[in-house]
Amino acid sequence: MTVDYSQLYSDLAANMKVSAIRELLKYTNKPEVISFAGGLPNPGTFPLETMKRICNEVLDKWGTKALQYGETEGLSQFRDYLKKMYAASGELVDGDDLVITEGSQQALDLFGKVLLSQGDHLIAEAPTYLGGANAFLVYGCHVDHVEMDDDGMRMDLLAAALKKAKKSGRMPKFIYAIPTFQNPAGVTMPPARRKEFLDLVYQYDNLIILEDDPYGNLYFEGEPVKSLKSMDREGRVVSLKTVSKVLAPGFRCGIVTGPQEIVRKVVVAKQSADLCSPALTQFMAWQYMEQGNMPAQLELIRKMYRGKRDLMVKALKENMPEGVKWTYPKGGMFLWVTVQGVNTEELFMEAIKNNVAYVVGTAFYCDGRGKDSMRLNFSYAKDDEILEGIKRLSNAIRTQRKATPKK
Amino acid sequence: MTVDYSQLYSDLAANMKVSAIRELLKYTNKPEVISFAGGLPNPGTFPLETMKRICNEVLDKWGTKALQYGETEGLSQFRDYLKKMYAASGELVDGDDLVITEGSQQALDLFGKVLLSQGDHLIAEAPTYLGGANAFLVYGCHVDHVEMDDDGMRMDLLAAALKKAKKSGRMPKFIYAIPTFQNPAGVTMPPARRKEFLDLVYQYDNLIILEDDPYGNLYFEGEPVKSLKSMDREGRVVSLKTVSKVLAPGFRCGIVTGPQEIVRKVVVAKQSADLCSPALTQFMAWQYMEQGNMPAQLELIRKMYRGKRDLMVKALKENMPEGVKWTYPKGGMFLWVTVQGVNTEELFMEAIKNNVAYVVGTAFYCDGRGKDSMRLNFSYAKDDEILEGIKRLSNAIRTQRKATPKK
Repeated sequence: MTVDYSQLYSDLAANMKVSAIRELLKYTNKPEVISFAGGLPNPGTFPLETMKRICNEVLDKWGTKALQYGETEGLSQFRDYLKKMYAASGELVDGDDLVITEGSQQALDLFGKVLLSQGDHLIAEAPTYLGGANAFLVYGCHVDHVEMDDDGMRMDLLAAALKKAKKSGRMPKFIYAIPTFQNPAGVTMPPARRKEFLDLVYQYDNLIILEDDPYGNLYFEGEPVKSLKSMDREGRVVSLKTVSKVLAPGFRCGIVTGPQEIVRKVVVAKQSADLCSPALTQFMAWQYMEQGNMPAQLELIRKMYRGKRDLMVKALKENMPEGVKWTYPKGGMFLWVTVQGVNTEELFMEAIKNNVAYVVGTAFYCDGRGKDSMRLNFSYAKDDEILEGIKRLSNAIRTQRKATPKK
Repeated sequence: MTVDYSQLYSDLAANMKVSAIRELLKYTNKPEVISFAGGLPNPGTFPLETMKRICNEVLDKWGTKALQYGETEGLSQFRDYLKKMYAASGELVDGDDLVITEGSQQALDLFGKVLLSQGDHLIAEAPTYLGGANAFLVYGCHVDHVEMDDDGMRMDLLAAALKKAKKSGRMPKFIYAIPTFQNPAGVTMPPARRKEFLDLVYQYDNLIILEDDPYGNLYFEGEPVKSLKSMDREGRVVSLKTVSKVLAPGFRCGIVTGPQEIVRKVVVAKQSADLCSPALTQFMAWQYMEQGNMPAQLELIRKMYRGKRDLMVKALKENMPEGVKWTYPKGGMFLWVTVQGVNTEELFMEAIKNNVAYVVGTAFYCDGRGKDSMRLNFSYAKDDEILEGIKRLSNAIRTQRKATPKK
């Protein structure tokens, strides 16, 4: 008798796709390739020396707790610290709870698990974060995209989509939104539209928003934008934050705040998913914040990333041929480029020949759109690599256009 | 308009149960309670000073990698080290792959996710590890128990169960087994029965075993027992190991070895579940092993736990009234007690009154059995607490028997 593993797979397994970014990364690992593809924070911002000291302190003071099984909902000291902080910013209100997950990605997966059944619908921006979409799609749902403009998701289109959904009995289980320095588009929803967004949601029973907010603290000018969570007065918003983009992704600390009932459900799901996240990295992240290191750290990151954004936008202006447009992110890590008359999937191998990489636009849609666009990350590459990489990308676009017969 | 979160939950959410252990732990947290309930390694075995040194070394040598996003399949250096080790012990063969998960618990969840659809069946020992069962039950499966004796799962009963399953078209997707120092029963399957087990499985197409092996290295006498994985010649066994019981649960490093195809599927599932586990703790666990610390560490744990098992068995012999039986574990962390004429769920509050705690037997069955039994953990409590705790438990049993009318 023999075994054919493919005969064993579940219904959910059939929904699992290898991420497009993952497949592309094969090409971008070559040292000669300048990659704008990944979504990595700049390692130059990692506070290594401080972390060495803090790790020693943690193992001295809380060693046996740091190495033991921890609480499923996260380290209580860290949770208490974060609760106070978010209560002060209006992002945690009475009736809310806060739990720590294995990065925001685990929160996305667990919300998918507790909210989505086969055939369910959800609404997401077009384009949207593909890690979120992939986590949701595993549970057999349909992702209905709503178009954005330079101010984020368009409310006229969302209103129409909800009206239609209501009529057809296919109301979305939730709206997945990244309103601040959106990944991949780099756009931000202004306060007035946020209010409009919430008011629209309030018109429907049992409609909630998952606000994915990894970049809110990475604003390059002026003041931070108030989150949807802090503006919500009806318990309609669950907020996902993370230390990945402001301290270190390696700590894998995602932070969920939202109405107690739904957040507790996520804890039950987490219990069977991994029992608990590592206590050591939670202790370290907590102590780093508790000791007051965060303001200077954020200032450092903002300054570095602002410089890199400026450099990339300047390089785009100086090098790109006609018919290439890009968004102007006021924070975060990404900008979105649209290339007239070029299929960015076909362009990709030409770009690799020119030793530069990006993520194809189609990776951020669940409906095949995005063929004329790409995401560029500006946080990771060195300054001179940004200038050189954009030159190479411009050349690749020119070459590709010559090779493509005009329609 | 309002929101009723319970209207939003998925089909899977309906399968999620709060673990019985978790609810009981509320009572066991009081300092006056001696708890045999948890499944915690003894923190006295955690190598804190060595870990402080190693953490510094890791941050010095690999700091930016340790704090950055890591590979979904686990830290490549650690995987290479483990692959060599398991190849040497025959637990990794040609065509196999190895991945690191967020503790074994994540591996249990991900195998559930990729293998189990609503209505599927699996076979597990009676009693079985409730964290495994809960992870599987979320996906809507049925757990069919097969009785054990002092040598683990009974092969005559398994043969009959498989025959019946085949006939009714309800073949199990897999057999979940903990053949070595079983949790909760503390029994171990001898080599001859392991061979019988594999031969039986080989008689069916597409039948595989998930071998959960967290305790294999915690043997108290003689030589370690060869794992099912190392005896398998048909690619039918997937092995789950962990550093939790031999180093520190807080590292959350589970280790999956098995046929490449199925292990790669787990990696795809892990990608949407959490992107990656923390690199820092994987670096630390790898360096701890690589620097040769493991043999002495294992010797220390074995010696301590052997002493505690001896003490608990001695205390049971000296204190327990008639009609109380227990297993004699040759390794691991648990023993299983059967109490004639007493419902251990009803006994629990009497035990708490006596300031001692255990886990009720029913927690380890999916079919309501186990009312006459309980699991005792002997790895965590201090030596004098073991003696005192067993005295208290004996008293509670005596009191409960007096209070219960004989049938």
